[in-house]
Amino acid sequence: MKRYRVGVIGGGQLARMMITPATNLGIELRVLSEQADSSAKLATTQVGDYTNEKTVMEFAQGVDVVTFDHEHVPLAILSKLEQAGIRVQPSSKALAHAQNKLVMRQALEKIGAPNPIWKAVSSATELKQFINDHGPEVIVKTPIGGYDGKGVRVVKSASDVSDWLDGPTLASLGGQLLAEQKVSFKRELSQLSARRSSGEFASWPVVETRQRQGVCSEVISPAPELPVHLVSKSVEIAKLISESLDVTGMLAVEMFQTDSGELLVNELAMRPHNSGHFSIEGSVTSQFEQHLRAVLDLPLGSTEAVRPIAVMANLIGNSDTNDYLENYPQIMLKFPAVKIHSYGKSPRVGRKLGHVTVLGESTASCLELAVSCRDQLLGINIANPE
Amino acid sequence: MKRYRVGVIGGGQLARMMITPATNLGIELRVLSEQADSSAKLATTQVGDYTNEKTVMEFAQGVDVVTFDHEHVPLAILSKLEQAGIRVQPSSKALAHAQNKLVMRQALEKIGAPNPIWKAVSSATELKQFINDHGPEVIVKTPIGGYDGKGVRVVKSASDVSDWLDGPTLASLGGQLLAEQKVSFKRELSQLSARRSSGEFASWPVVETRQRQGVCSEVISPAPELPVHLVSKSVEIAKLISESLDVTGMLAVEMFQTDSGELLVNELAMRPHNSGHFSIEGSVTSQFEQHLRAVLDLPLGSTEAVRPIAVMANLIGNSDTNDYLENYPQIMLKFPAVKIHSYGKSPRVGRKLGHVTVLGESTASCLELAVSCRDQLLGINIANPE
Repeated sequence: MKRYRVGVIGGGQLARMMITPATNLGIELRVLSEQADSSAKLATTQVGDYTNEKTVMEFAQGVDVVTFDHEHVPLAILSKLEQAGIRVQPSSKALAHAQNKLVMRQALEKIGAPNPIWKAVSSATELKQFINDHGPEVIVKTPIGGYDGKGVRVVKSASDVSDWLDGPTLASLGGQLLAEQKVSFKRELSQLSARRSSGEFASWPVVETRQRQGVCSEVISPAPELPVHLVSKSVEIAKLISESLDVTGMLAVEMFQTDSGELLVNELAMRPHNSGHFSIEGSVTSQFEQHLRAVLDLPLGSTEAVRPIAVMANLIGNSDTNDYLENYPQIMLKFPAVKIHSYGKSPRVGRKLGHVTVLGESTASCLELAVSCRDQLLGINIANPE
Repeated sequence: MKRYRVGVIGGGQLARMMITPATNLGIELRVLSEQADSSAKLATTQVGDYTNEKTVMEFAQGVDVVTFDHEHVPLAILSKLEQAGIRVQPSSKALAHAQNKLVMRQALEKIGAPNPIWKAVSSATELKQFINDHGPEVIVKTPIGGYDGKGVRVVKSASDVSDWLDGPTLASLGGQLLAEQKVSFKRELSQLSARRSSGEFASWPVVETRQRQGVCSEVISPAPELPVHLVSKSVEIAKLISESLDVTGMLAVEMFQTDSGELLVNELAMRPHNSGHFSIEGSVTSQFEQHLRAVLDLPLGSTEAVRPIAVMANLIGNSDTNDYLENYPQIMLKFPAVKIHSYGKSPRVGRKLGHVTVLGESTASCLELAVSCRDQLLGINIANPE
């Protein structure tokens, strides 16, 4: 029997959400999880440490391609896999740009993708100079290891990141920090696309992402009232990055729509992304199916929207004890058309526990329904939102 | 952590397709499969014989509810489960009507649902009389064990079923056969609905089902050009059956639309049904999600269509060796908007191996696309269809 076998490193919700398209298409999914009780435990075939070369090499045997739930696998290990003839998608060379924000800024500059003003700084003196030139406030990021607002600070003086500039810490971060201008932006956007190694490229409509405390809170597809030239520009940027950096699988380009009407690249993710969860119900082909197709070098599916509008709202834990599954009876009764997604995690403050999606004809009504359902699932007092 | 645990007896494609909504909603699915390499192997927690009381009783421990992939579990075993305080949905009492076609005909007659002319016959003489009264051709069915056209014959004389009327065989079938008039029908329809034990009822638009050699070949949702009074009548029949027989979970009522414009009930299935696979992409809530909600007595989801038309075409094996997954590269390229579902089975002539679904605005174009994709996936020569 013909088999397609995809190995996913990481057992989080992104691996979990690959289970559906894998099951639909008859693709065998094998997941390397850090713990037995991971979000993707149903598809977990091995529990182990993704920073251990032997573990990863063992996991990679017998799959057609290795791909990722997160971008934290050491590049040296991935290179070893590639040298051993194992297909890794995206490749270690492409993934370097998603792992290290300095590598990304340098590459984007080289290919002419729109960066904010940025500089690699390796001392308080250099940072002070950057603040003088582009302050009073600037953004400082650790080049590696950051996510969901972690590893990112708004900085007025070099002393705000003195811990990061401390010798051993700075060395562990690669010897440099990334300083960026604090962009005045109207809103944040995300452009999702997919590309296969033989070159085919497909994009979704650019979406608006709303953050709360540095974490994605809602996504609106398509981004409302975006000028048509920015809609095209957004796809152009994604295509440029994808092709120039030889990205395969899903690519999310997070961007600022600046006050002056420009697009500037904020972050890159080379995997399914929180800003694309709407596509599970909202698009003919979800980002999870597309990622599997792309990494297997199978033809990409249609990214056409099934309804004009899709809105997704994240279920972020607001308690270490409240389990929103307790609220299913009343919430399902009240919101029969909202699609609820649980990641099978125990509750914790600030943790991404699930999301809800609403499709429809009007942005305002979809957004209201999704937010209202999400808040009530979490038991948030609507009159006094936190 | 709050858990919802559903135990499914049977590891076929219906159990397989419950994996997606279970994963989405954070429901723990446990499947009792007959073999380790079943279609639903990902969710299989026990391999064993569903006709063995001890096996089934063991499986039922620790789940909130036991439900089914097929209707072949002996009622005596299900009664034992119920007596032990285990929730079984649909109940053994309701399920009796889906297991035994004579029990069904009697019950439908009693509640006033529209039957074709029928009679229980236990001898060649009785069958001969029925043929004399309602022939020249009649339908004879074995009351139990039939599916996909098996256990059903078109009969001109009692000798056509002499094997079934043979003493020991007849005894094994319960001592009686079901004789039915051969209905002159325009087409076959299926009405899908769901009901939870607390009473809530939800229905989908009635669909047209097309058969080839007794097996479902295509499903069109909604049934094109059905007179509006038959659309209402169809839901009324489903509601009457569902409530009168206390059916919980999914109910499929297969019906004939007769040449004279009546609806007559052909078969009942109390589980997700082949005629409802379109709902995975075609409806806000799929039949598989609805079944899980209903058997857990959770509120039912919206059955609204996401696009005006949905067409499903079954992938029926046309060879014992051709594996249609080999054709993914060219088929995905040619049909980027068709949703392909594989059941993970090895190829065999006549076996249901998967299905494809197309959503759109026009019945004719959806049907053409689905059939063309299905045929090409199977490698059927379009110029000379078999």
